[in-house]
Amino acid sequence: MSPKPLDYESLNENVKKVAYAVRGELYLRASELQKEGKKIIFTNVGNPHALGQKPLTFPRQVIALCQAPFLLDDPYVGILFPADAIARAKHYLSLTSGGLGAYSDSRGLPGIRKEVAEFIERRDGYPSDPELIYLTDGASKGVMQILNTVIRNEKDGILVPVPQYPLYSAAISLYGGSLVPYYLEEEANWGLDINHIRQSVAAARMKGITVRAMVIINPGNPTGQCLSEASLNELLKFCFQENLVLLADEVYQQNIYQDERPFISARKILLDMGPPMSKEVQLVSFHTVSKGYWGECGQRGGYFEMTNISAKTVDEIYKVASVSLSPNVPGQIFMGLMVNPPKPGDISYLRFVAESKAILESLKRRAHIMTDGFNSCRNVVCNFTEGAMYSFPQIRLPPKAIEAAKSVGKAPDVFYCLKLLEATGISTVPGSGFGQKEGVFHLRTTILPAEEDMPAIMTSFKKFNDEFMEQYEDYRGYSRM
Amino acid sequence: MSPKPLDYESLNENVKKVAYAVRGELYLRASELQKEGKKIIFTNVGNPHALGQKPLTFPRQVIALCQAPFLLDDPYVGILFPADAIARAKHYLSLTSGGLGAYSDSRGLPGIRKEVAEFIERRDGYPSDPELIYLTDGASKGVMQILNTVIRNEKDGILVPVPQYPLYSAAISLYGGSLVPYYLEEEANWGLDINHIRQSVAAARMKGITVRAMVIINPGNPTGQCLSEASLNELLKFCFQENLVLLADEVYQQNIYQDERPFISARKILLDMGPPMSKEVQLVSFHTVSKGYWGECGQRGGYFEMTNISAKTVDEIYKVASVSLSPNVPGQIFMGLMVNPPKPGDISYLRFVAESKAILESLKRRAHIMTDGFNSCRNVVCNFTEGAMYSFPQIRLPPKAIEAAKSVGKAPDVFYCLKLLEATGISTVPGSGFGQKEGVFHLRTTILPAEEDMPAIMTSFKKFNDEFMEQYEDYRGYSRM
Repeated sequence: MSPKPLDYESLNENVKKVAYAVRGELYLRASELQKEGKKIIFTNVGNPHALGQKPLTFPRQVIALCQAPFLLDDPYVGILFPADAIARAKHYLSLTSGGLGAYSDSRGLPGIRKEVAEFIERRDGYPSDPELIYLTDGASKGVMQILNTVIRNEKDGILVPVPQYPLYSAAISLYGGSLVPYYLEEEANWGLDINHIRQSVAAARMKGITVRAMVIINPGNPTGQCLSEASLNELLKFCFQENLVLLADEVYQQNIYQDERPFISARKILLDMGPPMSKEVQLVSFHTVSKGYWGECGQRGGYFEMTNISAKTVDEIYKVASVSLSPNVPGQIFMGLMVNPPKPGDISYLRFVAESKAILESLKRRAHIMTDGFNSCRNVVCNFTEGAMYSFPQIRLPPKAIEAAKSVGKAPDVFYCLKLLEATGISTVPGSGFGQKEGVFHLRTTILPAEEDMPAIMTSFKKFNDEFMEQYEDYRGYSRM
Repeated sequence: MSPKPLDYESLNENVKKVAYAVRGELYLRASELQKEGKKIIFTNVGNPHALGQKPLTFPRQVIALCQAPFLLDDPYVGILFPADAIARAKHYLSLTSGGLGAYSDSRGLPGIRKEVAEFIERRDGYPSDPELIYLTDGASKGVMQILNTVIRNEKDGILVPVPQYPLYSAAISLYGGSLVPYYLEEEANWGLDINHIRQSVAAARMKGITVRAMVIINPGNPTGQCLSEASLNELLKFCFQENLVLLADEVYQQNIYQDERPFISARKILLDMGPPMSKEVQLVSFHTVSKGYWGECGQRGGYFEMTNISAKTVDEIYKVASVSLSPNVPGQIFMGLMVNPPKPGDISYLRFVAESKAILESLKRRAHIMTDGFNSCRNVVCNFTEGAMYSFPQIRLPPKAIEAAKSVGKAPDVFYCLKLLEATGISTVPGSGFGQKEGVFHLRTTILPAEEDMPAIMTSFKKFNDEFMEQYEDYRGYSRM
């Protein structure tokens, strides 16, 4: 009998090719163990609220009022909600046509897109056009839409940093394009080497691939580096020379834990360069409410901004966005709140600042605890998390461990991470899920466990790691070579 | 100079092929006119809250509390919220891992999927497995994901009713498949004729197309018919014989305005049939919080349920859902509330029932006002809206009107709808956006304008239509032939 349309054998091959390690084998095993009653520390995904981060009060008050507009007329509303939250809820409801239950325009509410444009102008020092800003259900959906627009067939290549966030590899597989990797330099704090990027492009062209887009993730995921102004400058010139659209994943722009390299947007650098480049290089920049000190992942709010993209293409992207009608409206309002937080003098200002600062400063301390913890472990080296939410230590696995992994049919880093999970409950993602150089092994963890739990987690990690190394190392072992 | 990657000339051709009339030329023109200050009655999209429908109180209270969990400990919360809303908010928060700000499992929260399964069991009389229910950001996103899973290339055909909701044609274009139309029978109240469907399949096969899936929309959009048990039976047998997966768009299952043909799910009919069919026919059924008497479009909540789909395929669908992390969590909770509304004896029960009933009964009255209104117009005939939210009158355009349309380069129905918009502010969608038989013209309006406005809208429509007919008809005109 022939297979049925939704039998595995007859599915779209691109669907089958998709791999998404962040919720892959390790996550599934961790979920099983949790069901069996084991305490799991989920550090596989940047999901701050799941690890105990409390939501910021003011935005949640505003959204609650927007969801329950009948409270705005209630004489007792002031008992539970401050006046500035009430005013802001009225403001956002006035931007909708029918409240949170009505579809918005498929690009998002015009009033919120205007607030986003004003935020971008304050940030970059250049005006931004709300008509070129589209709101999305989280940044991932925006990235997927743009990749679907760019990729025509398997000969279209997308330059992606390796290690990369697997959204990119997954979406490129799904839309049937080719991923063209460029390696980040671990020894240079995960920086870019433009010569290596040139070589990657040349190698792809030898295979008949038309490289059409370049992805950067700044600050880096999983690698945590912040790109310097000089690097951004260099890669924008490269995009200009090579006729590439730059996709700038800047979702961690609020997550910066050092002062030497503050966040600078690719857009600002591009516009600083002046013509011809500032008028020519196509750029799409992505942002979200899921990261920063907000961490409102479950709300699914995001946007992308298009620079130097023709009106005709902008209309095509609008048309495709229309097919699923509109991004969720509460998520759009979260985006408005994120780009337009309470101001000095507002009733909620001091509380908002105190809550935000507490989260950011704790993240910074956690970044240090984690890097230092990893670097204290046998055969583990780790760059400092300059930004974003992840630590990506290199694990120098002894040959015997690599052999042991092979004997059970696992990649060596998967083997290590599974053992770590079983021994400690720490749920990480093996480096192979992000890509790494041949014979080099990593894992990714978030820096998100509660600060007070962090020392115990690192102690537990160290104990596991050092025993693992003890078990698999011998006198001919890797680290003594 | 060669085009840039995001220039129109170099975009993915499938993106360009997408057409989505519901937010197409008519909608864009209506938006322009609105900006110029004209009062527009947006009946182009089923968006009840945008036309003044108030949200149901209880679910909004629950969601507001879930968004502001700090209120649950406030001694004054009882002043603004009833005890059952407070209890329900605590219940839903207990199903999350970190509240509304945390990503859920990519399939949705297990606790809500269980509530959906229980709803389906109550509705159909057969148990439902939560592991085969995936929550989505509205039904459209689910439909798109399933079509992306089924369609491998342009030789894969999807049977779609014509007139159809253009989500289907748009998504089939985007994923590079072929739409195989089957015409609904306007004279038979938009019913199915299985012989015509057989002919459509045969014709597609002659062109080398493998027909893999069949879409039904029940109750119908834009056509408003409810499928009979006999029709559903017949088409499920057809799917069995022809090895088609049935995609059952049942988003209007709560919107029924007559008693002869109550809603019956495709799943119930399938399971009633017994083996082998009940064990063999692959079925995916879609539902949403956007329709019914809820109309919570902006929240983007939906689900699909899979029947007779192998575990391996279910896992592939899970994997792809994981790439965009999770559907929005507030929308998931709306789905929980929709399938599990207040029960007799609950504090909020009577109010909830009164609000729901008022909306549904008003929709039923509006369905009658609109059908009767259209049928009172010169050269307009219209089937009764048995279910869903739309009226789809046939407009018998005189030859002179068709010529006039051609002379300005418009399809005749687009010409008529644009004139209607300019004259009255009523924003409809031309029938050509949904598909119609050659030489026959329609428009779609929702039945959603406020009931008190309805008589004036229909008077305004009649005045426009009858003058239009007067202008373009002469003694050799169509209706006198």
